[in-house]
Amino acid sequence: MTGRLDIVGLGPGAEAMVTPEVTAALEQATDVVGYIPYVARIAARPGLTLHPSDNRVELDRARHALEMALQGQRVVVVSSGDPGVFAMASAVFEALEGWPEAQALPISVLPGITAMLAAAAALGAPLGHDFACINLSDNLKPWALIERRLRLAAEADLAMAFYNPRSASRPQGFEKTLEVLRASCGDNRLISFARAVSTPEQALLTVTLGEARPEMADMRTVVILGNSATRRVGNFVYTPRFAG
Amino acid sequence: MTGRLDIVGLGPGAEAMVTPEVTAALEQATDVVGYIPYVARIAARPGLTLHPSDNRVELDRARHALEMALQGQRVVVVSSGDPGVFAMASAVFEALEGWPEAQALPISVLPGITAMLAAAAALGAPLGHDFACINLSDNLKPWALIERRLRLAAEADLAMAFYNPRSASRPQGFEKTLEVLRASCGDNRLISFARAVSTPEQALLTVTLGEARPEMADMRTVVILGNSATRRVGNFVYTPRFAG
Repeated sequence: MTGRLDIVGLGPGAEAMVTPEVTAALEQATDVVGYIPYVARIAARPGLTLHPSDNRVELDRARHALEMALQGQRVVVVSSGDPGVFAMASAVFEALEGWPEAQALPISVLPGITAMLAAAAALGAPLGHDFACINLSDNLKPWALIERRLRLAAEADLAMAFYNPRSASRPQGFEKTLEVLRASCGDNRLISFARAVSTPEQALLTVTLGEARPEMADMRTVVILGNSATRRVGNFVYTPRFAG
Repeated sequence: MTGRLDIVGLGPGAEAMVTPEVTAALEQATDVVGYIPYVARIAARPGLTLHPSDNRVELDRARHALEMALQGQRVVVVSSGDPGVFAMASAVFEALEGWPEAQALPISVLPGITAMLAAAAALGAPLGHDFACINLSDNLKPWALIERRLRLAAEADLAMAFYNPRSASRPQGFEKTLEVLRASCGDNRLISFARAVSTPEQALLTVTLGEARPEMADMRTVVILGNSATRRVGNFVYTPRFAG
Protein backbone atom coordinates (compact mmCIF):
# COMPACT_ATOMS: atom_id res chain seq x y z
CA MET A 1 0.00 0.00 0.00
CA THR A 2 1.30 3.43 -0.97
CA GLY A 3 0.84 6.15 1.54
CA ARG A 4 -0.27 9.66 0.79
CA LEU A 5 -0.82 12.98 2.53
CA ASP A 6 -3.70 15.39 2.00
CA ILE A 7 -3.59 18.78 3.71
CA VAL A 8 -7.21 19.91 3.88
CA GLY A 9 -9.26 22.89 4.98
CA LEU A 10 -12.39 22.30 7.06
CA GLY A 11 -13.74 25.79 6.51
CA PRO A 12 -14.69 28.15 9.33
CA GLY A 13 -17.02 25.82 11.21
CA ALA A 14 -20.28 25.01 9.41
CA GLU A 15 -20.40 21.54 7.89
CA ALA A 16 -22.28 23.06 4.93
CA MET A 17 -19.06 24.92 4.02
CA VAL A 18 -16.86 21.79 3.83
CA THR A 19 -16.14 21.01 0.17
CA PRO A 20 -17.03 17.55 -1.20
CA GLU A 21 -13.39 16.81 -2.05
CA VAL A 22 -12.38 17.39 1.58
CA THR A 23 -15.23 15.18 2.80
CA ALA A 24 -14.07 12.45 0.38
CA ALA A 25 -10.46 12.69 1.55
CA LEU A 26 -11.59 12.34 5.17
CA GLU A 27 -13.71 9.29 4.27
CA GLN A 28 -10.65 7.56 2.80
CA ALA A 29 -8.20 8.53 5.55
CA THR A 30 -6.57 6.04 7.90
CA ASP A 31 -5.13 8.84 10.06
CA VAL A 32 -6.21 12.41 10.78
CA VAL A 33 -3.68 14.81 12.28
CA GLY A 34 -4.26 18.34 13.57
CA TYR A 35 -4.82 20.81 16.35
CA ILE A 36 -7.19 19.44 19.03
CA PRO A 37 -10.34 21.51 18.27
CA TYR A 38 -10.09 20.82 14.52
CA VAL A 39 -9.60 17.05 14.93
CA ALA A 40 -12.61 17.14 17.28
CA ARG A 41 -14.74 18.01 14.22
CA ILE A 42 -13.94 14.61 12.62
CA ALA A 43 -16.31 11.73 13.41
CA ALA A 44 -14.70 8.55 14.74
CA ARG A 45 -15.12 5.39 12.65
CA PRO A 46 -13.47 1.94 12.42
CA GLY A 47 -10.16 2.10 10.56
CA LEU A 48 -9.55 5.76 11.36
CA THR A 49 -7.07 6.90 13.99
CA LEU A 50 -7.35 10.49 15.23
CA HIS A 51 -4.12 12.24 16.26
CA PRO A 52 -5.01 15.51 18.00
CA SER A 53 -2.11 17.67 19.14
CA ASP A 54 -1.66 20.95 20.92
CA ASN A 55 -1.14 24.38 19.43
CA ARG A 56 2.38 25.64 18.54
CA VAL A 57 3.71 22.19 17.60
CA GLU A 58 2.97 22.58 13.89
CA LEU A 59 6.34 21.35 12.65
CA ASP A 60 6.33 18.24 14.89
CA ARG A 61 2.78 17.51 13.75
CA ALA A 62 3.81 17.87 10.09
CA ARG A 63 6.76 15.49 10.54
CA HIS A 64 4.56 12.93 12.27
CA ALA A 65 2.04 13.10 9.42
CA LEU A 66 4.79 12.62 6.81
CA GLU A 67 6.28 9.68 8.74
CA MET A 68 2.93 7.89 8.81
CA ALA A 69 2.43 8.53 5.08
CA LEU A 70 5.90 7.06 4.43
CA GLN A 71 4.77 3.96 6.35
CA GLY A 72 1.89 3.54 3.88
CA GLN A 73 -0.93 5.29 5.72
CA ARG A 74 -3.47 7.61 4.07
CA VAL A 75 -2.95 10.66 6.22
CA VAL A 76 -5.08 13.80 6.28
CA VAL A 77 -3.77 16.92 8.02
CA VAL A 78 -6.72 19.13 8.97
CA SER A 79 -6.77 22.90 9.40
CA SER A 80 -9.63 25.21 10.10
CA GLY A 81 -10.48 27.49 7.19
CA ASP A 82 -8.02 27.07 4.32
CA PRO A 83 -4.81 25.11 4.96
CA GLY A 84 -2.75 27.60 2.93
CA VAL A 85 -3.71 30.74 4.89
CA PHE A 86 -1.90 30.87 8.25
CA ALA A 87 -2.42 27.15 8.72
CA MET A 88 -0.75 23.76 8.26
CA ALA A 89 0.27 23.71 4.58
CA SER A 90 3.39 25.86 5.03
CA ALA A 91 4.42 23.78 8.07
CA VAL A 92 4.23 20.57 6.01
CA PHE A 93 6.37 22.07 3.25
CA GLU A 94 8.87 23.30 5.82
CA ALA A 95 9.04 19.75 7.17
CA LEU A 96 9.83 18.48 3.65
CA GLU A 97 13.07 20.50 3.50
CA GLY A 98 16.07 18.17 3.33
CA TRP A 99 13.86 15.04 3.38
CA PRO A 100 13.86 13.61 -0.18
CA GLU A 101 11.94 10.42 0.76
CA ALA A 102 9.04 12.53 2.01
CA GLN A 103 9.27 14.85 -1.02
CA ALA A 104 8.53 11.80 -3.22
CA LEU A 105 5.17 11.13 -1.49
CA PRO A 106 1.88 11.99 -3.17
CA ILE A 107 0.93 15.21 -1.38
CA SER A 108 -2.11 17.36 -2.15
CA VAL A 109 -3.48 20.54 -0.64
CA LEU A 110 -7.29 20.77 -0.73
CA PRO A 111 -8.48 24.34 -0.23
CA GLY A 112 -11.18 25.44 2.18
CA ILE A 113 -13.28 28.52 2.93
CA THR A 114 -10.85 30.64 4.89
CA ALA A 115 -12.22 32.68 7.80
CA MET A 116 -11.93 36.08 6.08
CA LEU A 117 -14.10 34.95 3.15
CA ALA A 118 -16.80 33.58 5.45
CA ALA A 119 -16.61 36.73 7.58
CA ALA A 120 -16.81 38.99 4.54
CA ALA A 121 -19.82 37.05 3.24
CA ALA A 122 -21.61 37.34 6.59
CA LEU A 123 -20.94 41.10 6.67
CA GLY A 124 -21.71 41.84 3.01
CA ALA A 125 -18.71 42.41 0.74
CA PRO A 126 -16.01 44.38 2.58
CA LEU A 127 -13.28 42.60 0.56
CA GLY A 128 -14.84 43.46 -2.81
CA HIS A 129 -11.83 45.55 -3.86
CA ASP A 130 -8.04 45.10 -3.39
CA PHE A 131 -7.08 43.99 0.12
CA ALA A 132 -4.29 42.70 2.33
CA CYS A 133 -4.45 39.67 4.60
CA ILE A 134 -2.25 40.01 7.70
CA ASN A 135 -1.63 37.69 10.65
CA LEU A 136 -1.30 39.80 13.79
CA SER A 137 0.38 37.07 15.84
CA ASP A 138 3.84 38.20 16.86
CA ASN A 139 4.84 34.59 17.50
CA LEU A 140 5.65 34.50 13.79
CA LYS A 141 7.30 37.86 13.17
CA PRO A 142 8.44 40.90 15.10
CA TRP A 143 5.93 43.62 15.97
CA ALA A 144 8.01 46.16 14.01
CA LEU A 145 7.32 44.22 10.79
CA ILE A 146 3.60 44.01 11.55
CA GLU A 147 3.47 47.75 12.19
CA ARG A 148 5.36 48.48 8.97
CA ARG A 149 2.93 46.34 6.98
CA LEU A 150 -0.08 48.02 8.55
CA ARG A 151 1.26 51.49 7.66
CA LEU A 152 2.12 50.55 4.07
CA ALA A 153 -1.18 48.72 3.47
CA ALA A 154 -3.03 51.77 4.80
CA GLU A 155 -0.97 54.05 2.54
CA ALA A 156 -1.99 51.82 -0.39
CA ASP A 157 -5.64 52.20 0.70
CA LEU A 158 -6.08 48.44 0.84
CA ALA A 159 -8.88 46.91 2.87
CA MET A 160 -7.35 44.52 5.42
CA ALA A 161 -8.31 41.19 6.94
CA PHE A 162 -6.61 40.37 10.23
CA TYR A 163 -6.12 36.85 11.58
CA ASN A 164 -5.22 36.11 15.21
CA PRO A 165 -5.93 39.67 16.37
CA ARG A 166 -5.66 38.97 20.08
CA SER A 167 -4.55 36.31 22.52
CA ALA A 168 -4.09 36.01 26.27
CA SER A 169 -0.32 35.95 25.80
CA ARG A 170 -0.22 39.34 24.02
CA PRO A 171 -3.14 41.47 25.19
CA GLN A 172 -1.43 44.72 24.12
CA GLY A 173 -0.81 43.79 20.48
CA PHE A 174 -4.26 44.53 19.16
CA GLU A 175 -4.49 47.82 21.04
CA LYS A 176 -1.28 48.90 19.29
CA THR A 177 -2.75 47.74 15.97
CA LEU A 178 -5.80 49.93 16.47
CA GLU A 179 -3.58 52.91 17.34
CA VAL A 180 -1.55 52.50 14.15
CA LEU A 181 -4.70 52.13 12.07
CA ARG A 182 -6.36 55.20 13.62
CA ALA A 183 -3.24 57.25 12.91
CA SER A 184 -3.11 56.03 9.29
CA CYS A 185 -6.81 55.82 8.37
CA GLY A 186 -8.60 58.27 10.67
CA ASP A 187 -11.39 57.71 13.17
CA ASN A 188 -14.21 57.33 10.65
CA ARG A 189 -12.92 54.25 8.83
CA LEU A 190 -15.22 51.21 9.22
CA ILE A 191 -13.91 48.12 11.01
CA SER A 192 -15.81 44.85 11.45
CA PHE A 193 -15.43 42.12 14.05
CA ALA A 194 -16.67 38.70 13.00
CA ARG A 195 -16.56 36.08 15.76
CA ALA A 196 -17.07 32.32 15.32
CA VAL A 197 -18.35 32.84 11.80
CA SER A 198 -20.76 30.22 10.43
CA THR A 199 -21.20 28.59 13.88
CA PRO A 200 -24.19 28.96 16.25
CA GLU A 201 -22.09 31.46 18.25
CA GLN A 202 -21.55 33.77 15.27
CA ALA A 203 -21.47 37.45 16.28
CA LEU A 204 -20.93 40.41 13.94
CA LEU A 205 -20.12 43.98 14.89
CA THR A 206 -19.21 46.93 12.65
CA VAL A 207 -18.03 50.19 14.18
CA THR A 208 -15.74 53.07 13.25
CA LEU A 209 -12.05 52.98 14.16
CA GLY A 210 -12.82 55.73 16.67
CA GLU A 211 -15.30 53.42 18.39
CA ALA A 212 -13.19 50.22 18.13
CA ARG A 213 -11.91 48.67 21.38
CA PRO A 214 -9.37 45.84 21.76
CA GLU A 215 -11.83 43.68 23.69
CA MET A 216 -14.11 43.52 20.63
CA ALA A 217 -11.73 40.81 19.31
CA ASP A 218 -10.61 37.48 20.71
CA MET A 219 -8.86 34.44 19.21
CA ARG A 220 -12.06 33.35 17.42
CA THR A 221 -12.49 36.73 15.72
CA VAL A 222 -11.50 37.79 12.23
CA VAL A 223 -11.24 41.55 11.91
CA ILE A 224 -11.86 43.32 8.60
CA LEU A 225 -10.90 46.95 8.07
CA GLY A 226 -12.49 48.74 5.15
CA ASN A 227 -10.68 50.90 2.64
CA SER A 228 -11.47 54.63 2.34
CA ALA A 229 -14.60 53.91 0.27
CA THR A 230 -16.09 51.09 2.38
CA ARG A 231 -19.64 51.93 3.39
CA ARG A 232 -22.87 50.58 4.85
CA VAL A 233 -26.01 49.86 2.87
CA GLY A 234 -29.05 48.42 4.67
CA ASN A 235 -27.67 45.86 7.14
CA PHE A 236 -24.52 45.27 5.11
CA VAL A 237 -20.98 46.59 4.76
CA TYR A 238 -19.37 46.61 1.33
CA THR A 239 -16.44 48.02 -0.57
CA PRO A 240 -17.28 49.39 -4.02
CA ARG A 241 -15.64 47.73 -7.02
CA PHE A 242 -14.38 51.02 -8.44
CA ALA A 243 -11.69 53.32 -7.08
CA GLY A 244 -9.76 56.39 -8.02
CA MET B 1 -44.40 33.71 -1.46
CA THR B 2 -41.52 35.77 -0.14
CA GLY B 3 -38.64 36.25 -2.48
CA ARG B 4 -34.99 36.04 -1.53
CA LEU B 5 -31.56 36.56 -3.04
CA ASP B 6 -28.48 34.41 -2.50
CA ILE B 7 -25.17 35.55 -3.94
CA VAL B 8 -23.08 32.40 -4.22
CA GLY B 9 -19.59 31.32 -5.20
CA LEU B 10 -19.20 28.32 -7.51
CA GLY B 11 -15.49 27.91 -6.76
CA PRO B 12 -12.81 27.86 -9.45
CA GLY B 13 -14.29 25.13 -11.64
CA ALA B 14 -14.27 21.66 -10.09
CA GLU B 15 -17.67 20.48 -8.85
CA ALA B 16 -15.85 18.87 -5.89
CA MET B 17 -15.01 22.38 -4.66
CA VAL B 18 -18.62 23.64 -4.59
CA THR B 19 -19.79 23.84 -0.97
CA PRO B 20 -22.93 21.94 0.07
CA GLU B 21 -24.71 25.17 1.08
CA VAL B 22 -24.21 26.58 -2.42
CA THR B 23 -25.48 23.34 -3.97
CA ALA B 24 -28.55 23.52 -1.71
CA ALA B 25 -29.25 27.15 -2.65
CA LEU B 26 -29.07 26.26 -6.34
CA GLU B 27 -31.47 23.33 -5.82
CA GLN B 28 -34.06 25.68 -4.30
CA ALA B 29 -33.65 28.49 -6.82
CA THR B 30 -36.34 29.58 -9.24
CA ASP B 31 -33.92 31.88 -11.10
CA VAL B 32 -30.16 31.86 -11.61
CA VAL B 33 -28.46 35.05 -12.76
CA GLY B 34 -24.84 35.54 -13.81
CA TYR B 35 -22.15 35.89 -16.41
CA ILE B 36 -22.66 33.46 -19.33
CA PRO B 37 -19.87 30.94 -18.58
CA TYR B 38 -20.81 30.70 -14.90
CA VAL B 39 -24.54 30.19 -15.58
CA ALA B 40 -23.48 27.51 -18.08
CA ARG B 41 -22.25 25.46 -15.10
CA ILE B 42 -25.82 25.19 -13.71
CA ALA B 43 -27.88 22.18 -14.87
CA ALA B 44 -31.29 22.98 -16.34
CA ARG B 45 -34.34 21.55 -14.52
CA PRO B 46 -38.10 22.18 -14.45
CA GLY B 47 -38.97 25.25 -12.39
CA LEU B 48 -35.58 26.90 -12.87
CA THR B 49 -35.02 29.79 -15.27
CA LEU B 50 -31.43 30.60 -16.25
CA HIS B 51 -30.57 34.25 -16.95
CA PRO B 52 -27.09 34.40 -18.48
CA SER B 53 -25.74 37.87 -19.28
CA ASP B 54 -22.61 39.34 -20.78
CA ASN B 55 -19.54 40.65 -19.01
CA ARG B 56 -19.36 44.28 -17.80
CA VAL B 57 -23.10 44.56 -17.07
CA GLU B 58 -22.73 43.67 -13.39
CA LEU B 59 -24.91 46.47 -12.05
CA ASP B 60 -27.76 45.79 -14.52
CA ARG B 61 -27.56 42.11 -13.64
CA ALA B 62 -27.70 42.90 -9.92
CA ARG B 63 -30.78 45.13 -10.38
CA HIS B 64 -32.52 42.46 -12.43
CA ALA B 65 -31.83 39.86 -9.73
CA LEU B 66 -33.21 42.17 -7.00
CA GLU B 67 -36.33 42.96 -9.07
CA MET B 68 -37.10 39.27 -9.47
CA ALA B 69 -36.59 38.68 -5.73
CA LEU B 70 -38.99 41.56 -5.00
CA GLN B 71 -41.53 39.79 -7.21
CA GLY B 72 -41.30 36.73 -4.94
CA GLN B 73 -38.73 34.62 -6.81
CA ARG B 74 -35.91 32.69 -5.13
CA VAL B 75 -33.00 34.18 -7.02
CA VAL B 76 -29.39 32.98 -6.96
CA VAL B 77 -26.65 35.21 -8.36
CA VAL B 78 -23.67 33.06 -9.31
CA SER B 79 -20.02 34.06 -9.45
CA SER B 80 -16.97 31.99 -10.16
CA GLY B 81 -14.72 31.56 -7.12
CA ASP B 82 -15.97 33.59 -4.16
CA PRO B 83 -18.71 36.19 -4.74
CA GLY B 84 -17.00 38.69 -2.42
CA VAL B 85 -13.61 38.76 -4.19
CA PHE B 86 -13.77 40.79 -7.42
CA ALA B 87 -17.18 39.31 -8.20
CA MET B 88 -20.91 39.98 -7.91
CA ALA B 89 -21.46 40.66 -4.20
CA SER B 90 -20.23 44.26 -4.31
CA ALA B 91 -22.31 44.92 -7.41
CA VAL B 92 -25.46 43.73 -5.63
CA PHE B 93 -24.78 45.98 -2.63
CA GLU B 94 -24.13 48.91 -4.97
CA ALA B 95 -27.51 48.21 -6.57
CA LEU B 96 -29.15 48.35 -3.11
CA GLU B 97 -28.10 51.99 -2.62
CA GLY B 98 -31.19 54.23 -2.46
CA TRP B 99 -33.56 51.28 -2.87
CA PRO B 100 -35.17 50.63 0.55
CA GLU B 101 -37.62 47.99 -0.74
CA ALA B 102 -34.73 45.87 -1.98
CA GLN B 103 -32.75 46.47 1.22
CA ALA B 104 -35.59 44.77 3.14
CA LEU B 105 -35.22 41.52 1.16
CA PRO B 106 -33.59 38.45 2.73
CA ILE B 107 -30.14 38.54 1.14
CA SER B 108 -27.27 36.14 1.88
CA VAL B 109 -23.77 35.80 0.55
CA LEU B 110 -22.51 32.21 0.42
CA PRO B 111 -18.72 32.06 0.14
CA GLY B 112 -16.79 29.94 -2.34
CA ILE B 113 -13.22 28.82 -2.97
CA THR B 114 -11.73 31.89 -4.62
CA ALA B 115 -9.22 31.35 -7.43
CA MET B 116 -6.14 32.39 -5.45
CA LEU B 117 -6.80 29.80 -2.75
CA ALA B 118 -7.24 27.01 -5.29
CA ALA B 119 -4.15 28.20 -7.17
CA ALA B 120 -2.10 28.40 -3.97
CA ALA B 121 -3.21 24.87 -3.00
CA ALA B 122 -2.25 23.49 -6.42
CA LEU B 123 1.17 25.16 -6.18
CA GLY B 124 1.88 24.35 -2.53
CA ALA B 125 1.48 27.21 -0.04
CA PRO B 126 2.75 30.47 -1.56
CA LEU B 127 0.16 32.45 0.47
CA GLY B 128 1.23 30.93 3.79
CA HIS B 129 2.34 34.30 5.18
CA ASP B 130 0.89 37.84 4.90
CA PHE B 131 -0.23 38.74 1.38
CA ALA B 132 -2.11 41.23 -0.77
CA CYS B 133 -4.84 40.45 -3.27
CA ILE B 134 -4.95 42.88 -6.19
CA ASN B 135 -7.18 43.07 -9.27
CA LEU B 136 -5.06 44.21 -12.23
CA SER B 137 -8.01 45.23 -14.39
CA ASP B 138 -7.83 48.94 -15.10
CA ASN B 139 -11.53 48.98 -15.96
CA LEU B 140 -12.05 49.43 -12.23
CA LYS B 141 -9.31 51.88 -11.26
CA PRO B 142 -6.60 53.96 -12.89
CA TRP B 143 -3.24 52.35 -13.68
CA ALA B 144 -1.50 54.87 -11.41
CA LEU B 145 -3.34 53.45 -8.39
CA ILE B 146 -2.50 49.88 -9.39
CA GLU B 147 1.18 50.82 -9.73
CA ARG B 148 1.16 52.58 -6.36
CA ARG B 149 -0.35 49.51 -4.67
CA LEU B 150 2.19 47.20 -6.31
CA ARG B 151 5.10 49.34 -5.06
CA LEU B 152 3.75 49.65 -1.51
CA ALA B 153 2.88 45.93 -1.25
CA ALA B 154 6.40 45.09 -2.45
CA GLU B 155 7.87 47.51 0.09
CA ALA B 156 5.84 45.70 2.78
CA ASP B 157 7.28 42.38 1.51
CA LEU B 158 3.81 40.96 1.05
CA ALA B 159 3.23 38.01 -1.25
CA MET B 160 0.65 39.03 -3.87
CA ALA B 161 -2.19 37.32 -5.70
CA PHE B 162 -3.26 38.99 -8.94
CA TYR B 163 -6.69 38.61 -10.53
CA ASN B 164 -7.43 39.56 -14.15
CA PRO B 165 -3.76 39.92 -15.08
CA ARG B 166 -4.30 40.28 -18.79
CA SER B 167 -7.02 40.82 -21.36
CA ALA B 168 -7.20 41.45 -25.08
CA SER B 169 -8.31 45.03 -24.41
CA ARG B 170 -5.20 45.91 -22.38
CA PRO B 171 -2.28 43.76 -23.54
CA GLN B 172 0.31 46.20 -22.13
CA GLY B 173 -0.96 46.26 -18.54
CA PHE B 174 0.61 43.04 -17.38
CA GLU B 175 3.95 43.87 -19.02
CA LYS B 176 4.00 47.10 -17.00
CA THR B 177 3.09 45.13 -13.86
CA LEU B 178 6.06 42.83 -14.38
CA GLU B 179 8.36 45.84 -14.88
CA VAL B 180 7.21 47.42 -11.62
CA LEU B 181 7.61 44.14 -9.76
CA ARG B 182 11.09 43.50 -11.16
CA ALA B 183 12.17 47.00 -10.12
CA SER B 184 10.76 46.51 -6.60
CA CYS B 185 11.51 42.84 -5.91
CA GLY B 186 14.48 41.95 -8.12
CA ASP B 187 14.87 39.33 -10.83
CA ASN B 188 15.12 36.31 -8.51
CA ARG B 189 11.72 36.58 -6.85
CA LEU B 190 9.46 33.58 -7.61
CA ILE B 191 6.24 34.13 -9.56
CA SER B 192 3.65 31.46 -10.35
CA PHE B 193 1.07 31.30 -13.13
CA ALA B 194 -1.93 29.08 -12.40
CA ARG B 195 -4.30 28.71 -15.34
CA ALA B 196 -7.79 27.15 -15.24
CA VAL B 197 -7.16 25.80 -11.76
CA SER B 198 -9.09 22.67 -10.76
CA THR B 199 -10.34 22.07 -14.32
CA PRO B 200 -9.02 19.49 -16.81
CA GLU B 201 -7.08 22.32 -18.49
CA GLN B 202 -5.18 23.25 -15.32
CA ALA B 203 -1.61 24.40 -16.05
CA LEU B 204 0.93 25.54 -13.46
CA LEU B 205 4.19 27.35 -14.08
CA THR B 206 6.64 28.85 -11.59
CA VAL B 207 9.55 30.99 -12.79
CA THR B 208 11.61 33.89 -11.51
CA LEU B 209 10.57 37.48 -12.22
CA GLY B 210 13.57 37.67 -14.54
CA GLU B 211 12.12 34.80 -16.58
CA ALA B 212 8.47 35.93 -16.45
CA ARG B 213 6.82 37.01 -19.71
CA PRO B 214 3.42 38.70 -20.17
CA GLU B 215 2.15 35.90 -22.39
CA MET B 216 2.43 33.44 -19.48
CA ALA B 217 -0.90 34.89 -18.25
CA ASP B 218 -4.32 35.17 -19.83
CA MET B 219 -7.80 35.92 -18.46
CA ARG B 220 -8.08 32.41 -16.96
CA THR B 221 -4.82 32.79 -15.02
CA VAL B 222 -4.27 33.74 -11.41
CA VAL B 223 -0.75 34.99 -10.79
CA ILE B 224 0.93 34.62 -7.40
CA LEU B 225 4.11 36.48 -6.53
CA GLY B 226 6.11 35.21 -3.58
CA ASN B 227 7.54 37.34 -0.81
CA SER B 228 11.30 37.57 -0.29
CA ALA B 229 11.36 34.21 1.54
CA THR B 230 9.18 32.18 -0.85
CA ARG B 231 11.02 29.07 -2.01
CA ARG B 232 10.71 25.73 -3.75
CA VAL B 233 10.77 22.36 -2.02
CA GLY B 234 10.31 19.20 -4.10
CA ASN B 235 7.62 20.02 -6.67
CA PHE B 236 6.08 22.71 -4.51
CA VAL B 237 6.35 26.45 -3.86
CA TYR B 238 5.73 27.75 -0.35
CA THR B 239 6.16 30.80 1.82
CA PRO B 240 7.50 30.11 5.32
CA ARG B 241 5.29 30.99 8.27
CA PHE B 242 8.01 32.97 10.02
CA ALA B 243 9.59 36.29 8.98
CA GLY B 244 11.96 38.89 10.24
